[in-house]
Amino acid sequence: MSDPHIRDLLQTLLAGQLSLTEAQRQLEEHLVQPPTAHLSDTQLDLERARRCGFPEVIYAEGKTPATVVELFTRLREAGQAALATRVSDEQLHALHERFSDLVINRVARTARFSLQRPPQGRVMVVAAGTSDRPIAEEALETLHWMGTGCELIVDVGVAGPRRLLAELPRLEGADAIVVAAGMEGALPSVVGGWVDCPVIAVPTSVGYGAAFRGVAALLGMLNSCAANVCVVNINAGFKAGYMAGLIAHRRHADQT
Amino acid sequence: MSDPHIRDLLQTLLAGQLSLTEAQRQLEEHLVQPPTAHLSDTQLDLERARRCGFPEVIYAEGKTPATVVELFTRLREAGQAALATRVSDEQLHALHERFSDLVINRVARTARFSLQRPPQGRVMVVAAGTSDRPIAEEALETLHWMGTGCELIVDVGVAGPRRLLAELPRLEGADAIVVAAGMEGALPSVVGGWVDCPVIAVPTSVGYGAAFRGVAALLGMLNSCAANVCVVNINAGFKAGYMAGLIAHRRHADQT
Amino acid sequence: MSDPHIRDLLQTLLAGQLSLTEAQRQLEEHLVQPPTAHLSDTQLDLERARRCGFPEVIYAEGKTPATVVELFTRLREAGQAALATRVSDEQLHALHERFSDLVINRVARTARFSLQRPPQGRVMVVAAGTSDRPIAEEALETLHWMGTGCELIVDVGVAGPRRLLAELPRLEGADAIVVAAGMEGALPSVVGGWVDCPVIAVPTSVGYGAAFRGVAALLGMLNSCAANVCVVNINAGFKAGYMAGLIAHRRHADQT
Amino acid sequence: MSDPHIRDLLQTLLAGQLSLTEAQRQLEEHLVQPPTAHLSDTQLDLERARRCGFPEVIYAEGKTPATVVELFTRLREAGQAALATRVSDEQLHALHERFSDLVINRVARTARFSLQRPPQGRVMVVAAGTSDRPIAEEALETLHWMGTGCELIVDVGVAGPRRLLAELPRLEGADAIVVAAGMEGALPSVVGGWVDCPVIAVPTSVGYGAAFRGVAALLGMLNSCAANVCVVNINAGFKAGYMAGLIAHRRHADQT
Amino acid sequence: MSDPHIRDLLQTLLAGQLSLTEAQRQLEEHLVQPPTAHLSDTQLDLERARRCGFPEVIYAEGKTPATVVELFTRLREAGQAALATRVSDEQLHALHERFSDLVINRVARTARFSLQRPPQGRVMVVAAGTSDRPIAEEALETLHWMGTGCELIVDVGVAGPRRLLAELPRLEGADAIVVAAGMEGALPSVVGGWVDCPVIAVPTSVGYGAAFRGVAALLGMLNSCAANVCVVNINAGFKAGYMAGLIAHRRHADQT
Amino acid sequence: MSDPHIRDLLQTLLAGQLSLTEAQRQLEEHLVQPPTAHLSDTQLDLERARRCGFPEVIYAEGKTPATVVELFTRLREAGQAALATRVSDEQLHALHERFSDLVINRVARTARFSLQRPPQGRVMVVAAGTSDRPIAEEALETLHWMGTGCELIVDVGVAGPRRLLAELPRLEGADAIVVAAGMEGALPSVVGGWVDCPVIAVPTSVGYGAAFRGVAALLGMLNSCAANVCVVNINAGFKAGYMAGLIAHRRHADQT
Amino acid sequence: MSDPHIRDLLQTLLAGQLSLTEAQRQLEEHLVQPPTAHLSDTQLDLERARRCGFPEVIYAEGKTPATVVELFTRLREAGQAALATRVSDEQLHALHERFSDLVINRVARTARFSLQRPPQGRVMVVAAGTSDRPIAEEALETLHWMGTGCELIVDVGVAGPRRLLAELPRLEGADAIVVAAGMEGALPSVVGGWVDCPVIAVPTSVGYGAAFRGVAALLGMLNSCAANVCVVNINAGFKAGYMAGLIAHRRHADQT
Amino acid sequence: MSDPHIRDLLQTLLAGQLSLTEAQRQLEEHLVQPPTAHLSDTQLDLERARRCGFPEVIYAEGKTPATVVELFTRLREAGQAALATRVSDEQLHALHERFSDLVINRVARTARFSLQRPPQGRVMVVAAGTSDRPIAEEALETLHWMGTGCELIVDVGVAGPRRLLAELPRLEGADAIVVAAGMEGALPSVVGGWVDCPVIAVPTSVGYGAAFRGVAALLGMLNSCAANVCVVNINAGFKAGYMAGLIAHRRHADQT
Repeated sequence: MSDPHIRDLLQTLLAGQLSLTEAQRQLEEHLVQPPTAHLSDTQLDLERARRCGFPEVIYAEGKTPATVVELFTRLREAGQAALATRVSDEQLHALHERFSDLVINRVARTARFSLQRPPQGRVMVVAAGTSDRPIAEEALETLHWMGTGCELIVDVGVAGPRRLLAELPRLEGADAIVVAAGMEGALPSVVGGWVDCPVIAVPTSVGYGAAFRGVAALLGMLNSCAANVCVVNINAGFKAGYMAGLIAHRRHADQT
Repeated sequence: MSDPHIRDLLQTLLAGQLSLTEAQRQLEEHLVQPPTAHLSDTQLDLERARRCGFPEVIYAEGKTPATVVELFTRLREAGQAALATRVSDEQLHALHERFSDLVINRVARTARFSLQRPPQGRVMVVAAGTSDRPIAEEALETLHWMGTGCELIVDVGVAGPRRLLAELPRLEGADAIVVAAGMEGALPSVVGGWVDCPVIAVPTSVGYGAAFRGVAALLGMLNSCAANVCVVNINAGFKAGYMAGLIAHRRHADQT
Repeated sequence: MSDPHIRDLLQTLLAGQLSLTEAQRQLEEHLVQPPTAHLSDTQLDLERARRCGFPEVIYAEGKTPATVVELFTRLREAGQAALATRVSDEQLHALHERFSDLVINRVARTARFSLQRPPQGRVMVVAAGTSDRPIAEEALETLHWMGTGCELIVDVGVAGPRRLLAELPRLEGADAIVVAAGMEGALPSVVGGWVDCPVIAVPTSVGYGAAFRGVAALLGMLNSCAANVCVVNINAGFKAGYMAGLIAHRRHADQT
Repeated sequence: MSDPHIRDLLQTLLAGQLSLTEAQRQLEEHLVQPPTAHLSDTQLDLERARRCGFPEVIYAEGKTPATVVELFTRLREAGQAALATRVSDEQLHALHERFSDLVINRVARTARFSLQRPPQGRVMVVAAGTSDRPIAEEALETLHWMGTGCELIVDVGVAGPRRLLAELPRLEGADAIVVAAGMEGALPSVVGGWVDCPVIAVPTSVGYGAAFRGVAALLGMLNSCAANVCVVNINAGFKAGYMAGLIAHRRHADQT
Repeated sequence: MSDPHIRDLLQTLLAGQLSLTEAQRQLEEHLVQPPTAHLSDTQLDLERARRCGFPEVIYAEGKTPATVVELFTRLREAGQAALATRVSDEQLHALHERFSDLVINRVARTARFSLQRPPQGRVMVVAAGTSDRPIAEEALETLHWMGTGCELIVDVGVAGPRRLLAELPRLEGADAIVVAAGMEGALPSVVGGWVDCPVIAVPTSVGYGAAFRGVAALLGMLNSCAANVCVVNINAGFKAGYMAGLIAHRRHADQT
Repeated sequence: MSDPHIRDLLQTLLAGQLSLTEAQRQLEEHLVQPPTAHLSDTQLDLERARRCGFPEVIYAEGKTPATVVELFTRLREAGQAALATRVSDEQLHALHERFSDLVINRVARTARFSLQRPPQGRVMVVAAGTSDRPIAEEALETLHWMGTGCELIVDVGVAGPRRLLAELPRLEGADAIVVAAGMEGALPSVVGGWVDCPVIAVPTSVGYGAAFRGVAALLGMLNSCAANVCVVNINAGFKAGYMAGLIAHRRHADQT
Repeated sequence: MSDPHIRDLLQTLLAGQLSLTEAQRQLEEHLVQPPTAHLSDTQLDLERARRCGFPEVIYAEGKTPATVVELFTRLREAGQAALATRVSDEQLHALHERFSDLVINRVARTARFSLQRPPQGRVMVVAAGTSDRPIAEEALETLHWMGTGCELIVDVGVAGPRRLLAELPRLEGADAIVVAAGMEGALPSVVGGWVDCPVIAVPTSVGYGAAFRGVAALLGMLNSCAANVCVVNINAGFKAGYMAGLIAHRRHADQT
Repeated sequence: MSDPHIRDLLQTLLAGQLSLTEAQRQLEEHLVQPPTAHLSDTQLDLERARRCGFPEVIYAEGKTPATVVELFTRLREAGQAALATRVSDEQLHALHERFSDLVINRVARTARFSLQRPPQGRVMVVAAGTSDRPIAEEALETLHWMGTGCELIVDVGVAGPRRLLAELPRLEGADAIVVAAGMEGALPSVVGGWVDCPVIAVPTSVGYGAAFRGVAALLGMLNSCAANVCVVNINAGFKAGYMAGLIAHRRHADQT
């Protein structure tokens, strides 16, 4: 740890500018008080950008439009990038009223401010079918917010196998690949068999009957016989994008 | 229906060789009494060969060796082919003692007599990995018993995709393809995407953890995005072979 | 394989009409570029009719009306038959506006163009009760689109066992039988016990409570003690019809 | 209620043979103290025969042989019939050592003393296949113990439909029918469709794969489209026999 | 069987009033043609009243109002009692328009005609809480339609144990007891422990969270440690009433 | 027991003011008749306050507004505190019309009268995120109704671990802690690891995909490696509050 | 917090007996280094007794006998009570060799040292049947180890309801009640309805078929309509005893 | 692609050293024939090292010792590293007989040859408890085989929260962290909240009752509220190690 704030505090104590009791109080408070912003009816973890590399993301479901606007305002004030997922029309409207330079994606149901810096790395986002697109778009928006270069490939499901073969060249050299698929969720295994990078599989609730709203795809992906496939929650486009972006970010941060 | 036995009976009645009461008794008995062989502690449906095209198959699990031997004896006496599945070592021993010309497959855990006739048709049996082999062999034994031509392809799982591409020429022209796979069960979808014949998918209990003893593979196969894939029970190699053999049998029976 | 296009290409190279580099480029492109039609926001696998025997079918759920119309337009241009399943009222309206000769089935929620040729083969579609009819109709529409002869039998559930006995004569001689049932899903087993052809069982979500939206019927069908029963996904009328049609098609194609 | 013991107590009080305090003590004790036999490490509800019509049954699983012997001894002393289910070899041995006139059924894993009285009523116990026999035998033993007339029919599963038709005459006139079946559990529905008496369905764990140790059969039976079918727990041969015996017992008790 | 119609037919044949071919045709047709009424888009099993003791019941879900009216009309013409369950407002309206003497129960969502005869037997219907009432009422309506005497007891859940004790006298002497309960479904076990008659347990979907829409109650009832408890499907008030009515009906039919 | 009413009754009998028959009748009636209020279409267990320490709580779901008002009226007449949970807007309106001094919480969907007495004890209610607040508020309202001191802490989920560390001082010295969390439900384990008092964990249905409407959180909490964590039903804020209040109530009742 | 160790450290720094750097190092180390004992292949959290009120408990499953002996040795050296659960015969033997004064319970599969102090409080442990006894005994051993007074009641399942009524007086005045039950798990609801103290319900895996190794009992207990019932994991006798002991401990600690 | 072999082939054709037919045959064969080693009863994908970066791994379960030895022999001959997982004692014995320089880990049940090169990168493997160690060791062995630097931390479960805080400094700077946990599976969320690198969560089947052999932990991890957590199959230590190694490998390969 070796926290500079502690060193300052001890020096101030030694300098006689602080009583022993006050030094202990400040020391203990410092150790437990995170830089959390207390808002009207929620808290915002402003420390997260430092601790985890990226700011806290707003999961908008169940929050009032006012709360979402307040959270974006605080993040902007703190100079941090902002991303909200699962945003309702009403919340989008409120955000749009307040911020003129917001990037909104209605298919992905996201809103974001990104930091102005050139994109780094390359993540491919692959969607088995058209219906998996909202989840794939949520992953893409997350990658844009993280400042990661990314591209989308759609409609390469295993029922038409030559379509994927045709796209293999585009997959080469990616830092990581996000694959979104519903129904039997076989696509991540098939992609994983052709490439040498990590594949983040995100099952979608596309399908009917024994697809059980994504459970069949989830189980398929967890049991993938390809070793380079890991899995996130059903419909968790954000998390898949975040994982892929994190991998790309750390690889390219080293190089710069 | 127009059952010839009924016609005979009515004629005998008209001929005065039968009383009205006796005619009615025989008529009603005939209608409900199937040609069932009552054995020591089970029954054998000898009529099935006529009604369904193939004789009753012996599911050996839970039967005594004596019962299995008795059932094979009756089938042989009736001139019908015989097949027993899920046969224990003790049952195999008892069968082997009694019949010198039995075909035994210890991997598939089957025993059979087949009718002496040249094989018809061509069914391919594909197993994703070595561990799926017992189920694939059960399908093959069933096909041999039905008199259907068949071949086995092993170790073409999706983690090594070029292995399947190399085998595609052998799959062309098949009457039907049985695909046995565990884990995520993606192989039938992938095979189904390349061929134009019916694919009978049989999930196996190969795998661990969230494979749930074949459930993941079962769900994957049921949700296959390939339209030419239907599914049988987990580890049901017999049923997969039977379905494929039935399709081949009827197609080639027409031609001869 | 022995692909004629490859032969042509090599000959052109030998004839000096193509540079070595260009020959290799065309060769490699040909090997990976499937004849896919890239549409506004989806792709259409025009090669499928050749590879699998029948064109790609449009699963309409989640697509815009414009996309569905565009897909039908391309299929017609390519001279292929067209079928869309799970079609919404809005999509039907858009298709109807554009094509005057479309066959629409509102119970089945399908729309199709068929090729003009006399129906081949005979598939029986059996529905346990009136509520299973939409799924049975989806199977029938699929069979019409494939050019397969087919008939419907409704309301022969096992609670009134003589109703099925009365229909047995109609089942005789079928190429394959589709059986749609919800609740306990016992009908395919019962039908399978009487006939000698493949039975494609399709569980429906009809029922309540422990029917679990088709799961009870699905499990019942997977565990059928009749050997000639295979299963497709819950409510998958299309897939059941397709499997049955494929079996009939190949049997009768041989004969003609 | 109008309990004669209370009346006696009040009369003794009025007769001055009991103090008020003692009367109240005895009254309150009587109201809460059931005639339970406290044994070494269990209790025996001797009152149950009066309250429920039949004595408590010994579920032997997890009990020591000594405990089972002690329970049988107490029931015999109380002049009550005795039945133990799920009995181990070791327990059977201990019971056999102690009682010479015990009826033991090793297939059903039961031991019993019955009261000497002519059987009343008629319950049919139907088992789909040979493997369902242990459960069917447990039901039969329970019926014998209750003094109910009963018969067994085996091997009439739906894959050979004419076998059941041949047995229909034996089912006519039964007070109740117990049907034990595993796999898809379709037999109770089929039986229920032919008869006019209550059918007690007992799913068995016979089958493999998606039979899920009786779950498929259980769901099938719960969703039976026949209205006269109710269900007991998987492998609960005892409970099925008890329910059927209770129905027969009450019907015939009225008549005598 | 000894079917009088067959005897007549054989006599007519012997009398020369029928050709052999025509006799056989009529004989075979008679054997397979049930007295089914073919309606616009469904069938009605008019034979069921004779075969099973009570007419076919109309499960109204998914039927058009016109179909339901047509079915009631046919049952009335055949002089049979009529009962429809899961009836929608629209269906009720259509029935009400057509028949002035219909008994409608909006809580139970049923409509019925009963035969005019004095009620026989006594079945108690017990509902754990107010929310279980619709299911209990469906059972009561079924019992009224069957002509069985019945009474309702509500709000005697196990959280207030003395409420049930107070009602025990009313339960004494019942032919059978229906118990409807949701949540943990403990009430049938508790009732079963106090009485000597069959208890038909019907789990309801009342509850939330881990009640899983009736699954918790269903499992509780299946595992009841009381031997006189059997179970029907979740929310299957009709089936519970039918089973109880059947038991009462047969007991009292014997006595009259 | 030693019930004074029984003593009085016996004395009246001895005094000759009661016949033996009448004494027995009154005695038996007294033993089984609980002080239940029979309302229009439900019952109210007025005895519960004495038996269990707190009055019966009204689970409003599925009751008419009139019934809820009637139940509150009776509780007020009996001088008992009143609490209704899962109250609809319509029910709230009806209660508000009738009682001017009701405490309504629209987030928690509760209405209550509390007894006027100073709060006792201290229970902390912790909610992982903003979306878990309705459940946490239901627990708080229950605690207010019981007269237990309580406080709320929100937004201390494990993704921002220092937020919980900052709140540890407030958790110290609590009688019990209620922790409401959805998604993976890890918070109760983490809280349980830091404190020495009982933790009542309530899983919420917050989350999506494999959260399965609270099942993931429920399983997480049941398997907590912290020994001081017990669990209530999904979304059961009332029950969590009640358990915590009961623990606090009994501890402080001893001290006063 | 106000940790005296921090104050000492700051004073030593001010006294010049520590360099600034060393003070910071010691300060930071102190904050993160828990008093954990590092053993051969595991760690022991010796701080837990202070933080949580009771020492760490040894879950013996999967540990070597040597590790278990080492853990007990360290706890004894630290003057802390010791409890090991799920102990194998081999582990018991090793412990017994090493410690002469160990309390071993082979039914509960536990071993323990307790602190010598008079038991405080009173917890009742109720087991529905004899087979639930191992789990109940594990709870009792845990209570003995905690120094809590406790008693066992066995064989009061709901099938013999008067047995529980007879034991109600013993339940009165308990600090908390542990109820262990398998099968339908109804007993905690029934007990909860009669008492005014917290009930800790522990489902056991006793039962068969749809008991699903404790799942039915678990669901029943989670959905209990009694408000004073909370639940721990299946077969978690230790955790149930711990929760009950914690409640009793804190209540009586206040009084002394 | 631009495959040099194709160029060579075309040049040979142009040079007249190959007939057109032979050129086409070789071309097509080359395109589909992967460098697969055909062994006695399995295949080995030797091309995988080139395509995916690491050679095929031997999943030993269900293979004969001879097959495993043969596979290792081929990999060594091809100069590739070798790893076998889920190795039985018998297989280990056979490998040990044949190869003297094998690295065997009996806790992890693995055997391997690694390539001789200095380890790159740093992956931390964290196990919640001692029982999770076999899975953690499988991950470590995989990392050793990949040539990745790695360390193990054990016994930092959430019930003793300060133990993890003490290890945080070791987690800093890792390329990726593997976290293995059973029971509620909360540890990956807690770790994820403190670090800025990818966390690969592997649920283990440690626990009992509602742990459902790893399902509770799996669901907990999938629903993690920490964004940097992805999941692999239950007990899939190999896959978790492979994913982490892949991330580290690519990051450091760039730098060298």
